[in-house]
Amino acid sequence: MPYRSSDKTRQKKDAKRTAMMQAAVQIFAERGYQAATIRDIVKEADVSIGTFYFYFPDKETLFVHLYEETADFLIHTLQQAANSRTTFARQVDAILQAYVSIAIFEPAVVELLLVAGVGTVPALTAKTASFREKLILVWQIPLTEAMKKGQVPDQNERRTAEGLVGAVDQIILGLLAQPDREDIAAGAVRDMNQFVLRATGHY
Amino acid sequence: MPYRSSDKTRQKKDAKRTAMMQAAVQIFAERGYQAATIRDIVKEADVSIGTFYFYFPDKETLFVHLYEETADFLIHTLQQAANSRTTFARQVDAILQAYVSIAIFEPAVVELLLVAGVGTVPALTAKTASFREKLILVWQIPLTEAMKKGQVPDQNERRTAEGLVGAVDQIILGLLAQPDREDIAAGAVRDMNQFVLRATGHY
Repeated sequence: MPYRSSDKTRQKKDAKRTAMMQAAVQIFAERGYQAATIRDIVKEADVSIGTFYFYFPDKETLFVHLYEETADFLIHTLQQAANSRTTFARQVDAILQAYVSIAIFEPAVVELLLVAGVGTVPALTAKTASFREKLILVWQIPLTEAMKKGQVPDQNERRTAEGLVGAVDQIILGLLAQPDREDIAAGAVRDMNQFVLRATGHY
Repeated sequence: MPYRSSDKTRQKKDAKRTAMMQAAVQIFAERGYQAATIRDIVKEADVSIGTFYFYFPDKETLFVHLYEETADFLIHTLQQAANSRTTFARQVDAILQAYVSIAIFEPAVVELLLVAGVGTVPALTAKTASFREKLILVWQIPLTEAMKKGQVPDQNERRTAEGLVGAVDQIILGLLAQPDREDIAAGAVRDMNQFVLRATGHY
């Protein structure tokens, strides 16, 4: 998970910056972007206000960096999941398992990417468009491959991939809204697998 | 379309309020909520600033009313489309045709509901949740009916409906991002029909 993993690249980054990013994910998720203050973030991260301004000129800049790094983490994780399998059905299952794991264990990450900042931070518009585009490709690449291999019928794979991104995001947001989400996560993954395989016309 | 139709209830409402609402849809869509000013709106609506404050205490209140009325209009239109048909396949087609018509001829409406205000206006959080819920029911009600009639297999109809809402919204946003959207709209409706019927396992 971002700002929590033992990933070596992240460990090399400055610990104070990491602590602020980690705190910011939580604070933005809890209070929303507008209500969250720099004071909240430095208090949660246990650093001084001077430390904050050494790294970031303002709250917006921190948010944009946070969004970008969180989006990269999610996309990278889902791509890895897809690349770890060879048939379309197994790729779909791996992507869904990975996405739901992040949603369950790091709900603030999904909250941040799918809900928190949209429309709030002007500098984010291009970043959110780029995130959506990468998320569409997470589905479109395996789908195109499956079409070539005859595992699914010919279709407008771009449009199907857009549909899959929207469907999965919406079902995951629905899952996160449930208090017993950990208990029902396996059922949600099963339903989403069925949805995706049906929607793509998988044989 | 809202603030443009010949619908009698709307006509009875005050013309100046209607003009401001109509102007606001355009201004918010063009500039975004934060950048839009009350001056922009009254200029576009050709009313005085005093008229604005006679109707609304501030920009946020206007936006919340606008969101609510626009959401009601969209939901009502989609429900009417669904109710006008009796088989699931025809209901799906009617909903998709109606949604795409609004998206093509009133892109600002869809922009407002799906993108513009999220996260920006705190008072909107409950309204957006209620809009999503109603949009899910637009799909869930025909789907439950189709399950009872044996037109689709048994499934978690709530979760499928969430998936359909997400899928359709994402494909429509993809359509709106295209400069030749009017020309490709029919193809998008065809692809979405196929997607929805496949995803629900329609026989």
